[in-house]
Amino acid sequence: MGREPRDNLVVGRHAVAESLARHPDRAQELLYCGDGRSAALQDVLGAARAAGVKLRRVERRRLDRLARGAGHQGVALRLAASAYSDLDAVLERAVEAGPAGLLVMADHIQDPHNLGALVRSAAAAGAQGVVIPKDRACPLSPAVAKSAAGALAQVPVARVTNLSATAAQVKAAGMWLLGAATRQAPPPWELDLDLPLCLVVGGEHKGLGRRLAGACDLLTSLPLAPAVESLNASVAAGVILFEIVRQRAS
Amino acid sequence: MGREPRDNLVVGRHAVAESLARHPDRAQELLYCGDGRSAALQDVLGAARAAGVKLRRVERRRLDRLARGAGHQGVALRLAASAYSDLDAVLERAVEAGPAGLLVMADHIQDPHNLGALVRSAAAAGAQGVVIPKDRACPLSPAVAKSAAGALAQVPVARVTNLSATAAQVKAAGMWLLGAATRQAPPPWELDLDLPLCLVVGGEHKGLGRRLAGACDLLTSLPLAPAVESLNASVAAGVILFEIVRQRAS
Repeated sequence: MGREPRDNLVVGRHAVAESLARHPDRAQELLYCGDGRSAALQDVLGAARAAGVKLRRVERRRLDRLARGAGHQGVALRLAASAYSDLDAVLERAVEAGPAGLLVMADHIQDPHNLGALVRSAAAAGAQGVVIPKDRACPLSPAVAKSAAGALAQVPVARVTNLSATAAQVKAAGMWLLGAATRQAPPPWELDLDLPLCLVVGGEHKGLGRRLAGACDLLTSLPLAPAVESLNASVAAGVILFEIVRQRAS
Repeated sequence: MGREPRDNLVVGRHAVAESLARHPDRAQELLYCGDGRSAALQDVLGAARAAGVKLRRVERRRLDRLARGAGHQGVALRLAASAYSDLDAVLERAVEAGPAGLLVMADHIQDPHNLGALVRSAAAAGAQGVVIPKDRACPLSPAVAKSAAGALAQVPVARVTNLSATAAQVKAAGMWLLGAATRQAPPPWELDLDLPLCLVVGGEHKGLGRRLAGACDLLTSLPLAPAVESLNASVAAGVILFEIVRQRAS
């Protein structure tokens, strides 16, 4: 077996499949050798494709070298050190920004396009960070990074176990929680948003959960034409974020 | 061969494949019989899947009946009468709306998620219609309809050969053209947008083309944090549309 493979490299079919299943957000690139059609590799290559991970065919010697003698079975997965930032660090940055403090908390966004677009909007609006939950939500992944179009390098994303507990922590740090409700709240331009804010948005299907909505200091909803139920989650967040930008600029 | 198949039904492998290639926007549902694994059906089922068309397995007798004796070879495609509205009808509605007139013209949006989200935002902002070009742009398709979340029933979409000619027509009808530029234009809240407007947005990659930008009466761009190049195309359009809604509401 020899030495351990290089850092951030998982080798062998079973280990790669397990890593893809557990931490799709950390997967950067899958390396394989052979023609990629061998029955033994089908499952793991398919899982990587489904997770939006780039596949790269390399020479067997290359894999041997990277694996440092560990049994790679023709496949290796390169991982990011960690895609996530520490919540305390994110919160500290937001508090330091004073009146320009801006966070986005996304409750159960399921679609990587939406999460990527949301991170991109948060970065564009000058937010200091994005907070997402560990469960029942889309994790960071190559598909999210693609939609975010580079914004993941501009704005840190923290992942937490319990959004309600985090909301309490954000409040205790002196920020106001602004919830994006689906209906029956004033439009954002009727609220004073020139405050240190954490925008809390719901997922695509259920909107903002009742418990999180209850924790918010302010609720807002966009006035929609009759017969239109809702906006795309990332568009709604973008509209509110830029209303905050507008108010702060004037 | 017998009678013609029912209206809006294309039958037979070749005809179905050709219809999918030429008018993916009109495809509603693919019906097939057999186990779906026959080599002869693979190409056409694969093409339908790639276009986001729903596949439904039916009894052979059902296909026989729908095809009315035409040779269906195990496959039929159900088409929408037409996914598009007539430009003149769209323009007439917008002009009739007077100061509430609002159109969205989308130059070369490539991604069905973005086009769907854009149509949804246009409907939510009360627009009378959306205009897209025939070439080098995503057509209406089941994937667009899914992203639009029902909004395609609320707002008509017209497809035109030449956006510049349409822009001239929109202007001649008394509407103002507001172009979403990428940089170096005032933010929308510094412009008076309480006018009959046609918002002109660019595609994901190149933004607004020079010729269309030149035709615009007004240009606007959103102030983005340094190091962030641009917003997602449908988010940017949503932000500007709701700034129009804000100004008109106040």
